[in-house]
Amino acid sequence: MLAGSRVLLTGATGFLGAHLARRLVAEGCWVGALLRLGSNTARLANVLDRLHPLSGDLLAPDTLAEAMRVSAPRYVFHLAAHGVDRPLASATDSVQTNVQGTVNLLDACRAADLARFVYVGTCYEYGDGSAPCREDQPVAPANYYAASKAAGWLLCSVYHRVHGLPVATVRPFQAYGPYQGCRLLLPYAITTALRGEDLRLTPGEQVRDFVHVDDVVDGVLTAATTPAAVGQTINLGSGEGTTVRRAVEMALDVLGWPVPAHFGALEYRPGEVWDLRADPRRARELLGWQPRTGLADGLRQTVGWYRAHLELALRLPSS
Amino acid sequence: MLAGSRVLLTGATGFLGAHLARRLVAEGCWVGALLRLGSNTARLANVLDRLHPLSGDLLAPDTLAEAMRVSAPRYVFHLAAHGVDRPLASATDSVQTNVQGTVNLLDACRAADLARFVYVGTCYEYGDGSAPCREDQPVAPANYYAASKAAGWLLCSVYHRVHGLPVATVRPFQAYGPYQGCRLLLPYAITTALRGEDLRLTPGEQVRDFVHVDDVVDGVLTAATTPAAVGQTINLGSGEGTTVRRAVEMALDVLGWPVPAHFGALEYRPGEVWDLRADPRRARELLGWQPRTGLADGLRQTVGWYRAHLELALRLPSS
Repeated sequence: MLAGSRVLLTGATGFLGAHLARRLVAEGCWVGALLRLGSNTARLANVLDRLHPLSGDLLAPDTLAEAMRVSAPRYVFHLAAHGVDRPLASATDSVQTNVQGTVNLLDACRAADLARFVYVGTCYEYGDGSAPCREDQPVAPANYYAASKAAGWLLCSVYHRVHGLPVATVRPFQAYGPYQGCRLLLPYAITTALRGEDLRLTPGEQVRDFVHVDDVVDGVLTAATTPAAVGQTINLGSGEGTTVRRAVEMALDVLGWPVPAHFGALEYRPGEVWDLRADPRRARELLGWQPRTGLADGLRQTVGWYRAHLELALRLPSS
Repeated sequence: MLAGSRVLLTGATGFLGAHLARRLVAEGCWVGALLRLGSNTARLANVLDRLHPLSGDLLAPDTLAEAMRVSAPRYVFHLAAHGVDRPLASATDSVQTNVQGTVNLLDACRAADLARFVYVGTCYEYGDGSAPCREDQPVAPANYYAASKAAGWLLCSVYHRVHGLPVATVRPFQAYGPYQGCRLLLPYAITTALRGEDLRLTPGEQVRDFVHVDDVVDGVLTAATTPAAVGQTINLGSGEGTTVRRAVEMALDVLGWPVPAHFGALEYRPGEVWDLRADPRRARELLGWQPRTGLADGLRQTVGWYRAHLELALRLPSS
């Protein structure tokens, strides 16, 4: 349904954004990618020449107006965010990029003829509420990043209700796959093991709902093209919980345990969240979406990619 | 319990803030009031000389650090906000003052030895969720002001959870009383009637939980001094719903109907919220608080004040 459509994408240099950019190009879309000057485009190396880079910044409204004018999009995918990899680094940076930046983009979109504005939130907005996480339960973010993403979501909802902007929100759970930055759990474990160094980890009892990035991209695209998604918030998760420790062990199983993993060498982070599993029903009912790649298969593919691209992986931006 | 304490107050020039300032002074507190240059202090006319004005701005972190240094507070009451009177005027102003400004204040408070940081939210954070509104139900703000206040609340929660800041949040319902700006419903109706002009109003079917400002101040102070309030969000409402139309009619009853009221002359506002009644149980259980002034008595007192201070009332800032 998206084939041939004009699309504006923010966050294209990020992990999920680069996968989405690649898929949109493959679907035959005209893809305008809002890029800040000097962005690290390492993840876009093999697709950048088929994108239309639009120099801009979420915090410079005039550049957004110009990006909207040049791209004249029917679909906007808003993925740019601060703090994915360091959720307690800076409340101000998270608020500015994720709240004010989202408002600036929403304002730039008000006059546009959009079929859909997809806001990509995060399972971390749920925080330590009850798992499985239902979209209609209260958000309870435990760090600046998650709080600012939830704030951006609240503002998207206002623009939908008051201005009729066709917003759909997805909340990916623990996405993983190729091109993820090495500060995050699985890439850290995989690349460190590939380099022959011991793993230093928390005890790893946190439960996460791991979803392969290709499945997340499917969910994002389906939310963009399914009429019933407008005005809705939809989890992209499997509903299955796996401890961080188990996920790392599964990755090391694929690698043949070249190094030991020291679980408990690191302390848990402030604001740690213990159980993030999706209630996956709304995605099934509204979008007909569910993940197709199980964790074991996904990890084999992912480990294979990092093995083949270790040099590149170590040069990726962290988020 | 607050007597003699050092206090820092933001939003002292506002409706609720000025009442709180007056009460804190009466309780014998040292009250530092963060004031922007050129603020309209009409509401503080009879108390300003007993406050300690601290020139500053929520968006200028260095002025907050200086205000914290000078006031060395044990209690911080954060009431300053943008958009109370015009909740859809500017998403950017609401985000900057109510989210970034709150973050700046929270950051300034991290190193302080606070007994309590009271965040004054709003019933509008609930939006058109189900009434009666319970503190643990999802927020669903319907305008920029309410969304930004909910965002500020989420960030307060993070500073409580991660940094141990002793935050307590109250959510006043429909506060009314002397010194409220004439753009708001009851002051508009009362002052317009006092001037002999017809009232032009919406149909007025919206249900609100009216609470006299003196009761709200009681609730704010109790949240500051009750240990069990830390980390909690607490409604300040009666649980009783009254339509806007009925409240205006009650005020006109007190005045003897000097003018007609044209209900339906105005359209409802975008993002109108239809039913905002508190579930009042948590306030009773945690704080032992409930409103003492019924609407009929409160309106008699309020109308009396506007009658005696009409000139002043018309000069008040709108929020």
